[in-house]
This record gives sequence, C-alpha cells and structure tokens, in this order.
Amino acid sequence: MSRQIKLAVIPGDGIGPEVVAEAVKVLGAATVADDVEFALTWFSLGATRFLETGDVLTDDDLGAIAAHDAILLGAVGGVPGDPRLANANIERGLLLRLRFSLDHYVNLRPSVLFPGVPSPLAAPGNVDFVVVREGTEGPYVGNGGAIRQGTAHEVANEVSVNTAFGVERVVRYAFEVARGRAAKHLTLVHKTNVLVFAGGLWQRIVTTVAAEYPDVTVDYLHVDAATIFLVSNPSRFDVIVTDNLFGDILTDLAAAISGGIGLAASGNINPDGRFPSMFEPVHGSAPDIAGKQLADPTAAILSVALLLDHLGLTDAAARVRDAVVADIAARTENGAFTASRGTSAVGDAIVTRMTDK
Amino acid sequence: MSRQIKLAVIPGDGIGPEVVAEAVKVLGAATVADDVEFALTWFSLGATRFLETGDVLTDDDLGAIAAHDAILLGAVGGVPGDPRLANANIERGLLLRLRFSLDHYVNLRPSVLFPGVPSPLAAPGNVDFVVVREGTEGPYVGNGGAIRQGTAHEVANEVSVNTAFGVERVVRYAFEVARGRAAKHLTLVHKTNVLVFAGGLWQRIVTTVAAEYPDVTVDYLHVDAATIFLVSNPSRFDVIVTDNLFGDILTDLAAAISGGIGLAASGNINPDGRFPSMFEPVHGSAPDIAGKQLADPTAAILSVALLLDHLGLTDAAARVRDAVVADIAARTENGAFTASRGTSAVGDAIVTRMTDK
Ligand SMILES: CC(C)[C@H](C(=O)O)[C@@H](O)C(=O)O
Ligand SMILES: CC(C)[C@H](C(=O)O)[C@@H](O)C(=O)O
Repeated sequence: MSRQIKLAVIPGDGIGPEVVAEAVKVLGAATVADDVEFALTWFSLGATRFLETGDVLTDDDLGAIAAHDAILLGAVGGVPGDPRLANANIERGLLLRLRFSLDHYVNLRPSVLFPGVPSPLAAPGNVDFVVVREGTEGPYVGNGGAIRQGTAHEVANEVSVNTAFGVERVVRYAFEVARGRAAKHLTLVHKTNVLVFAGGLWQRIVTTVAAEYPDVTVDYLHVDAATIFLVSNPSRFDVIVTDNLFGDILTDLAAAISGGIGLAASGNINPDGRFPSMFEPVHGSAPDIAGKQLADPTAAILSVALLLDHLGLTDAAARVRDAVVADIAARTENGAFTASRGTSAVGDAIVTRMTDK
Repeated sequence: MSRQIKLAVIPGDGIGPEVVAEAVKVLGAATVADDVEFALTWFSLGATRFLETGDVLTDDDLGAIAAHDAILLGAVGGVPGDPRLANANIERGLLLRLRFSLDHYVNLRPSVLFPGVPSPLAAPGNVDFVVVREGTEGPYVGNGGAIRQGTAHEVANEVSVNTAFGVERVVRYAFEVARGRAAKHLTLVHKTNVLVFAGGLWQRIVTTVAAEYPDVTVDYLHVDAATIFLVSNPSRFDVIVTDNLFGDILTDLAAAISGGIGLAASGNINPDGRFPSMFEPVHGSAPDIAGKQLADPTAAILSVALLLDHLGLTDAAARVRDAVVADIAARTENGAFTASRGTSAVGDAIVTRMTDK
C-alpha cells in the first residue's frame, strides 16, 4: 500500500487560489513516480470566508487542519482599506493563529538568486542563503495593549517576549541547517546594543550552542547593518538566525534582492512533528491582480519543494527545483527576463519539464 | 556684535575624531562671511573615556552639554568584543541617553543619491527622500527586563512604549517637512497588521493630522514591504515617518542604496528648542580603520549642513552642500568613484571649493 499523506490546502484570498492551483498541479506531477498518495482537504479560509460567514478561523477549523500531515497555503488578506474588514485582522486571526497554534517555531526562508533572474542589485554576486526566522515569540506574540485609546493621553505598548526555551530550539535548528551546508556559517541578527535583554538572551544562547558546533563559524550583525550587507554584499550570508520581527523584515528584503517575492518560498515548520508544518509563498494576496492570471506561481511551487523536503520526499523536491530553475532559465531571452506569462502557463511549463524527463 | 553660538563637540571614538576635525574645519569655512562666531567646547566622551575613568556620561557632562546651542558628534563605541566594555553599553549610556535626555524626538535622516555616486542598485533612479524617525519612544525606551537570567527558564521582554503625545508631535513635524518639499508626499511605515496597538495609534494619528494638510498626499507601507520598495523603486519615497526601531533599520538601508554610510548625515532634533539638537553622521566609530585617514568625512560634513540649517544659517548650509556635491562629482573619473582619498584631503577639498567662490 502506498504512503498516504493528508494535505490541508488553504488557497485563501486574491491570487492565493490561482497560485495554489499551480502548486497542486506540480505536487502531483512531481510525485507520480513515488509510492505516495496525497489526500487533499480544501479549506475555505480568509477574507472571502470572513465576509460570508463572519468567521476567521474557528476552533473546529483549527482542529481539522491540525489532523493533517502538512498544510499548503496560498495567501490571505482582503482588499486593503475594505471597511468591512476594518476590525477583522485576517493576518493575526488566521495566519499568525495557525503559526502559533501549530507551534511553527521555525520559519524557513531560503533566498537564492537563480541563474537568469534579474536582481535590482548591480552586482549581486552569488546569492544563496537561508533565513531561519523564529515563529512563535518576539514582538509577534500579541502581547500589546493600550490605555485611554483615542485620546490625547493614549499609551500603546507592545511587548516582545523571548524565552530561553524558544530561542534555544530555533538556534539549534539554525546550527543544524548551517552544518548541512557547504559554507557552514551562521549569522545572528539582532539589536543587542539597544534591546539589551532580548538581545542578550539571543547572544548568550548562540554562544553556548556554538560550542557544540565547532564546524560552524558564527558572527553577529545588528539588524540595521544586516540590511546594508544584504544590498552591498549578500554573498557574505549563509544562514541567518533571527527573531520574528527582524526575520519578517530581512526576508522581504532578501526576496527583493533575489528576484522578487514572486519567487520567494517559505516553510512554517514544527520540527517536533507534533503539528503539521505549513508551506506558503512569502508574497501576499495581491487583490489588485487577482483573477487575471498575472501572478507568478513560482513562489508557491518552490514552497511545494520545501513541503516535499519536509516529508522526506527529497527526490521529488529536487525534481521541482530543477524544473523551476530550467523554467526560469528559459524565461531569459536576450538577457531579458519574462515575468509576464500567465499563471497557469508557468505551472504547465514546469509540469511539462518534469514529465518529459 | 556678532551672534555667538555655543557648540558642544563630541568627537568620540574610532574614526569620530578624524571626521569631526574635518567637519569643524568646514563649519568655520562655511560661516566666514556670516556674522556668527562659534564657541566650541570639546567633550571627551565614549569608550576611550570610559576605559580611562569608568564614566560613560555623568550628570555633570549632561548638564554642561545641555547648556550649549547645539551639539556635533562624531561616533561612539569601542572595539567590538573588547571584554573591558562588556558591561558598558556606550550606545545606550551615551548616545541614547543624550537623545532621550535632550528630547530629540525627531531623528532626521535625508537620503540623496548625489550625481556621480555609485549605488549598489542597478537602476536607482532619482533617490531623494527624508526619513523622519521618532527618537524618544518605541522599542528604544529601555523598558525591558528578564527573569531567571542565564537559566533554561529565562524570559526576556522588551516593551515598545508609544504615546499619542509622542507620536503626534513627530507626525506633525513630518507633515511640515513634506509640505516644504516639491512632491509633498508622506509615507507612514509600521507593521499595523501585527503590532496592532502601536500600529493603530500611529495610523489614527497620521489620519487625523492629515486632515490639516490637504496639500500632502499620504500612504502607508508595512515595514517589510518598505524594504522591498527601497531597493526596487526608491524614487517612490518623499518623506517617511516611522518609529524609532523601524527608522533605525530603514535609514541604514537608505544610506546603503544612496552611496553608503560614508555619505549619510543625521540630525537629532528637539524642535521645541528647549534642548540643544545634535548632529552626527549615521555611521559608527569603525575602530578597524581608525587613525589611518581612511574614513570619509562627508557624512560628518553633511551633518554640519543640517546643523547650519537648524541654526537658521541656510546660506552657509547651502554652501556646504554645494561644495560636497561638487567634490563628489570631481571624485568621479571615467565613471569610477574614488572613495579612497584621505580623510583630511576630502575636508580640505571641500573647504577649498567654498573659499574659492
Ligand atoms: C502577513 C503578515 C502577518 C506576515 C508576517 O508579518 O509574518 C507576512 O509579512 C510574512 O512575512 O509572512
Ligand atoms: C548606535 C545605535 C544605538 C544607533 C541606533 O540604533 O539608533 C545607531 O544605529 C543609529 O542609527 O544612530
């Protein structure tokens, strides 16, 4: 009997359904030769669902999703400024609730500048690094509050919560990632000179764990300096480990310098395996271009490669990545990169490359 | 009798004294024709002073500095990793203490890509914007703490404190800056979808104050998206208003795309005039190149231009800027930018341009 994998699929809003359709197509094509069978459950969640039912993510939804082996997510979020969504906060109520409830403490975001892809940098060099962003702590915990709201005396606070437990597990994961790579180099990014308590904790744990990884070299950058290096010398990076907020900022910048968020994949990983991990493109729902077949599904497709890796289907993951690299190379004609093929045309081209082999 | 201006000068550590020497030279040359007289008091502060005396910034120092009309600062901070500085935190104890004690609630950081200066971006376009960074609130307040430090059960928190009072005054300042510029466009940068309380306060105040500035157009970007635009389309920015931490990150990135921190100036401003404002290059003390005449003093010299503007000596400020622009243009030979002249050679060249006029 073939291995059954239960996959929860959350297409979401805007371009989400379009790019997920291509990702699912590629998932099937990549695994035809494998003795696996994907059982897909589709979950209608996001702004569209909220506007229909008033629910963002019910406990029942969460329970049902948690019973799967993995999750594929497109993008969530309605039209910015839609007054009907003013008090909804789909991002916190859906995306962050999933990440926190399913203990996705590793947010894995590789940045690779594939051959043929134009970078906004004049001389990007060899861009190939991965950001290990903490996913369940820091300024994202939702531990904020306000008094005298709406008055001239309002005080609004946000608390960044960081624990030795939470920092150590993600730091260990990052060291393992670094050990598995050629350069074996880890950079801690924080702001230790200002956020002395949180920064001190991160710094101490990195120093302690580093002793167990003598084969991995380690350095430290303040987050502001890290942005400078990301545009002046991105090839200095191999593995970056950082907190939830700094990771959010650095990975968008990292995506921008390596060809844009149309190509940036991510995995929200629960390494313990107690909960399903979730794979999603870094981009948002882009409602302005939704339904027009304008979105690049490559980021969603590369997220499928991360999903396959996570499931141990590394050959299938490699097939997806190879097909994407070949497709990107073929898009480059006379030095110009065609970003403008239709969404399903990109998916079809990648599937063809895999099945023609 | 000519106007007397009392200037506190804090050369600081590393390259600080070298670049400040050039800045002071330029200050004198720029104002020979004006009916002003600068009375300089030199303050020996920073890592060097700490290592000699154990003091970072005494109340007496602070009182003496506060009795001046303005402050010129080079850079502070010792050699990274110096064990004698492990518990000092010169940044918090000196730089941030000055900014907070002297109520520098506006941290003004212009980004201009001067003609001839190479950018790491392939097609930077017209880069000319200014970041109005809040200087006395947010995650910089020093409101953190930890329990069970050094154990497996450590919890380290950092609190971002934001007040209607503090946000409104910097937002008003930013609108005034925007009103005075050609494009009259203001972008609020925050992370409202995650930091809902702090972000909500910023968003509401910008919306409210915007009603008084119908001539200024306003938009909003999440901080992660802002980093993408800074590398993909920096000319979309005119004035950015943001909090202390986001401003720290964005201004280093902004400096990088507009020719590097060797050219980035800043003003820590107390617009009320109750306390002296402080002008400093964005760069740090760079101990690795200190004393070798390798540092570019342009950032410090452009900080003098901001100082002159602040003092109402706008003609002198323009003279400095014109001389810097001319000097930069002259550094570009055959398309290659010479960054490697000696520190005092750059200062001398700029002085010569001003005095030859
Ligand atoms: C949508 C938002 C809550 C999310 C985040 O901030 O993590 C996004 O920017 C991301 O990086 O996945
Ligand atoms: C040195 C450090 C405390 C400072 C800051 O974070 O504000 C610096 O990075 C800056 O931007 O002036």
